[in-house]
Amino acid sequence: MLVLGIDPGSLTTGYGLVEKKDNRLIYVEAGKISFSYSLPFSERIYKIYKSLLEVIQTYHPEEVSIEDIFFAKNVKSALKIGHARGAALIAAIQRGLKVFEYTPLQIKQSVVGYGRATKEQVRSMVTLILKLDNQKFSLDTSDALAIAICHHNWVRFEDTN
Amino acid sequence: MLVLGIDPGSLTTGYGLVEKKDNRLIYVEAGKISFSYSLPFSERIYKIYKSLLEVIQTYHPEEVSIEDIFFAKNVKSALKIGHARGAALIAAIQRGLKVFEYTPLQIKQSVVGYGRATKEQVRSMVTLILKLDNQKFSLDTSDALAIAICHHNWVRFEDTN
Repeated sequence: MLVLGIDPGSLTTGYGLVEKKDNRLIYVEAGKISFSYSLPFSERIYKIYKSLLEVIQTYHPEEVSIEDIFFAKNVKSALKIGHARGAALIAAIQRGLKVFEYTPLQIKQSVVGYGRATKEQVRSMVTLILKLDNQKFSLDTSDALAIAICHHNWVRFEDTN
Repeated sequence: MLVLGIDPGSLTTGYGLVEKKDNRLIYVEAGKISFSYSLPFSERIYKIYKSLLEVIQTYHPEEVSIEDIFFAKNVKSALKIGHARGAALIAAIQRGLKVFEYTPLQIKQSVVGYGRATKEQVRSMVTLILKLDNQKFSLDTSDALAIAICHHNWVRFEDTN
């Protein structure tokens, strides 16, 4: 099964595609959607939506995994991240994909085994799990891959219970 | 010119269409998009997007006016309203419409002449301006009409300067 993980943000939205084959997790693709600073906020939100639609059309993931956000630095950043996350949800639902949501704690626990892991620790574990030692991901991209890995682990957990 | 005003919210999103003809503001249509409580949050956001696309396809507004939000009760409600507002922006931009944003202060000032007006006062002025004395709008709907009226007034102001 191919899972698209999304780490939404109004400055950068990371995405990562991870496949499970014969009980092995395989890296398929990852990247980030970012913007020129001159692009108006509403156009950025639209670009997140359009870019994720394209990713879905290109790679045909079967399920989507996205971070469930409850906290933000302040009301202003919560408003912004809400817009970005809304764009991601709309793209996924429009393509008929089932969306699974995980808290940051669940994601870190699932990938690093420790809920308070730093983004750098998450990246190290992601490159280890996916056997990508030579590849240096941005932190947004490795977070998105971690979100996809988390869903794979969760599904496995559900299957065996 | 026909303007679509949108008052975004994750529980209820109001919309109102106001046309300007021969220097008169005319009510065209208004309503609200609401949900059953059982509908998952992500599905609500998608429904806001889909419903607004339908409104745009049915009435062909030329411009969109939407509230610019900086404040919210707390981070949790800011996240929710951000999702809803993102859905509205995506629908408008996808249909090629130009989006104009006004603060709550600008909207109230423009419609009631007083930036601290209550929602009830806004509704009274909206029904007066649009000559709809017999119609009782919900507060979300009259807010959306006020946002459309605000844009008409702003454009008039711009034209005469």
